[in-house]
Amino acid sequence: MEQQRLAVFRKTHFNAAHRLNNPAWSDEQNARVFGKCNNTNYHGHNYELVVRVVGAVDPETGYVIDLGVLNNLIDVNVLQKFDHKNLNLDTAEFANLNPSAENIAIVIYNLLRPKLNTNLDLKIRLYETERNFVEYPA
Amino acid sequence: MEQQRLAVFRKTHFNAAHRLNNPAWSDEQNARVFGKCNNTNYHGHNYELVVRVVGAVDPETGYVIDLGVLNNLIDVNVLQKFDHKNLNLDTAEFANLNPSAENIAIVIYNLLRPKLNTNLDLKIRLYETERNFVEYPA
Amino acid sequence: MEQQRLAVFRKTHFNAAHRLNNPAWSDEQNARVFGKCNNTNYHGHNYELVVRVVGAVDPETGYVIDLGVLNNLIDVNVLQKFDHKNLNLDTAEFANLNPSAENIAIVIYNLLRPKLNTNLDLKIRLYETERNFVEYPA
Amino acid sequence: MEQQRLAVFRKTHFNAAHRLNNPAWSDEQNARVFGKCNNTNYHGHNYELVVRVVGAVDPETGYVIDLGVLNNLIDVNVLQKFDHKNLNLDTAEFANLNPSAENIAIVIYNLLRPKLNTNLDLKIRLYETERNFVEYPA
Amino acid sequence: MEQQRLAVFRKTHFNAAHRLNNPAWSDEQNARVFGKCNNTNYHGHNYELVVRVVGAVDPETGYVIDLGVLNNLIDVNVLQKFDHKNLNLDTAEFANLNPSAENIAIVIYNLLRPKLNTNLDLKIRLYETERNFVEYPA
Amino acid sequence: MEQQRLAVFRKTHFNAAHRLNNPAWSDEQNARVFGKCNNTNYHGHNYELVVRVVGAVDPETGYVIDLGVLNNLIDVNVLQKFDHKNLNLDTAEFANLNPSAENIAIVIYNLLRPKLNTNLDLKIRLYETERNFVEYPA
Repeated sequence: MEQQRLAVFRKTHFNAAHRLNNPAWSDEQNARVFGKCNNTNYHGHNYELVVRVVGAVDPETGYVIDLGVLNNLIDVNVLQKFDHKNLNLDTAEFANLNPSAENIAIVIYNLLRPKLNTNLDLKIRLYETERNFVEYPA
Repeated sequence: MEQQRLAVFRKTHFNAAHRLNNPAWSDEQNARVFGKCNNTNYHGHNYELVVRVVGAVDPETGYVIDLGVLNNLIDVNVLQKFDHKNLNLDTAEFANLNPSAENIAIVIYNLLRPKLNTNLDLKIRLYETERNFVEYPA
Repeated sequence: MEQQRLAVFRKTHFNAAHRLNNPAWSDEQNARVFGKCNNTNYHGHNYELVVRVVGAVDPETGYVIDLGVLNNLIDVNVLQKFDHKNLNLDTAEFANLNPSAENIAIVIYNLLRPKLNTNLDLKIRLYETERNFVEYPA
Repeated sequence: MEQQRLAVFRKTHFNAAHRLNNPAWSDEQNARVFGKCNNTNYHGHNYELVVRVVGAVDPETGYVIDLGVLNNLIDVNVLQKFDHKNLNLDTAEFANLNPSAENIAIVIYNLLRPKLNTNLDLKIRLYETERNFVEYPA
Repeated sequence: MEQQRLAVFRKTHFNAAHRLNNPAWSDEQNARVFGKCNNTNYHGHNYELVVRVVGAVDPETGYVIDLGVLNNLIDVNVLQKFDHKNLNLDTAEFANLNPSAENIAIVIYNLLRPKLNTNLDLKIRLYETERNFVEYPA
Repeated sequence: MEQQRLAVFRKTHFNAAHRLNNPAWSDEQNARVFGKCNNTNYHGHNYELVVRVVGAVDPETGYVIDLGVLNNLIDVNVLQKFDHKNLNLDTAEFANLNPSAENIAIVIYNLLRPKLNTNLDLKIRLYETERNFVEYPA
């Protein structure tokens, strides 16, 4: 039987402060659109990050990708940038980009995509809370 | 890089009583097919509902859809109908429809679909228990 | 070193319908006190039950109590009575007792207590939802 | 049988930014003791809060305390102060107190204790992450 | 409205010992590639298995497939083979196949696929730990 | 207000193979008492370990104990011994002791107790599965 492709997932987490704000808007508009997420002095989250990589299973290892290697890629390229940081103030990625869960997921995708072989597909799921989460690409 | 579409998820819950039963069948057939789920006086569940909406990210907000708006749509159109209710006796939707998890998910889809912009895709995941759940459309 | 006592826990679950109501009160008072939990036609829950038994560890088995034996006691004395039932209508225990989580925990304690050796301590934790739960005795 | 006391639990959550820092110390000592939790621009967490109240079960309601009432006490006295806030900058409680999970739990205890009848016991469990949590009093 | 297809999920679990090893390699290469997962005397996991079946909803039952029937298929064809076993030593399936999570998922797919009607689609998700999991087909 | 003592918890995990067996018994007695947990070639678990330490809160740090220090104690004294090991074959602790969850918890307690200041209390909770767990001392 011809083998189909398989997805592997690695779940990690980071803790960060952030604030939703559009500098092109007035304070009133920011407060109306973003509500308490616009709090001037920031709030924070335990972000749960699930990285999904799709490819063929290597018959020699039984792996699509060594999860230790994947974990290290996530650590170096994502966690060391964002963990225990203020996304708005401490990172280049969100200096001029609103750190919504949606934008964080896209940024993480764009950080990891060049590090993976082009024959592997990538998808990012990011939980801002247990009840609010996003997936990119859909 | 052209932006791909992104999925946002909102997880909520409701508690309800229900009973699986097909009125076109005999009591014996209902008992045989539905087992203890056919119990005459109903039983119940804490239903966990995950609503998934797919669309483009608005560059001004960093949102596909404001999760507060989505949460309100779910509250008004789903939770206020079904939470702390007997699905068979207290709701129009299941007066003549067997309230299996499958049918509940399809009903919730049909309740929310007209409330969302047509450029947004919708998917419903419903947990009847931690170990039994459904997704519509697949 | 003298061995201290050890606690073993077994987690199970059952699904049931119930309604909070005090028959000595008027409909208005029941609605005011119990809110949507007073819904006439019942609602329901996935109850998670954690049974805790404390005793000495038997040096021959490494067990306080065989968890298979404990699981069977819970199944026969609790789950077969309450799973997929309407607590108010289908059980003798709640025919005249309001099936609040508090009272359900006390009833389960009283059902299991006589089945366990007197040198074992018993405690019941009952989750009505993930966010509302009780423990008896405290 | 004389009734023993029973514990009820209500689980809620809030999202906040914080920074661990002792102003009496040098920057070097703060960095050495608190590590990445000392990050100047703050980081954040989804705090999960479990409030435990112990008392006798009221035979008329089957309640130790109405969980709606308890939930409202938590909302008014804790969540409205801390949710979507910077604990160090936005709250009087942590203006001069290091917002470690330990101190947050003690502060929450002291906020809620005067609101509860003296015949009820109170305990606070606070999860800073899924893997780090505290309980007060022990 | 024409009905779309719906997915039902059944989550179960099994506990097993395993060891990652490629007999065509030297001990050094196995240790280098598989690390502590190559431990000679095996280690083990609580595997969580989610079986997803997609099909049309039967209007008479409200089911895609009776979850009791699906559960029995999983029990007979998967759990009775693998639960409380050493995958490398006690099973024919992994006598000559490295029991990586990837390969276990493919084996489970191939065990269940012939037992399901061809108009039903099948997907396997397998959690080796809460943080490492796979899905087949992707 | 005089400060009461506070509990801090650190949750970690390890994966191991084990087999329940009493060498003083016949094979028949071992099979009858331990059932599938007696499987000759071992099976395995993802053990979740929660270490609870009780003490006074240090006013300078807001800590009972630095969780990084505690985490390191657990890593060196417990995880490095047991993670990805066969408890029966690879560890001195269970060479002559049945590795039931109960005995593993007691062993972990005895490994950590001498590493902690005597003014700190210690309690171990060990999950063998999500549904079977133990606590020592009770």
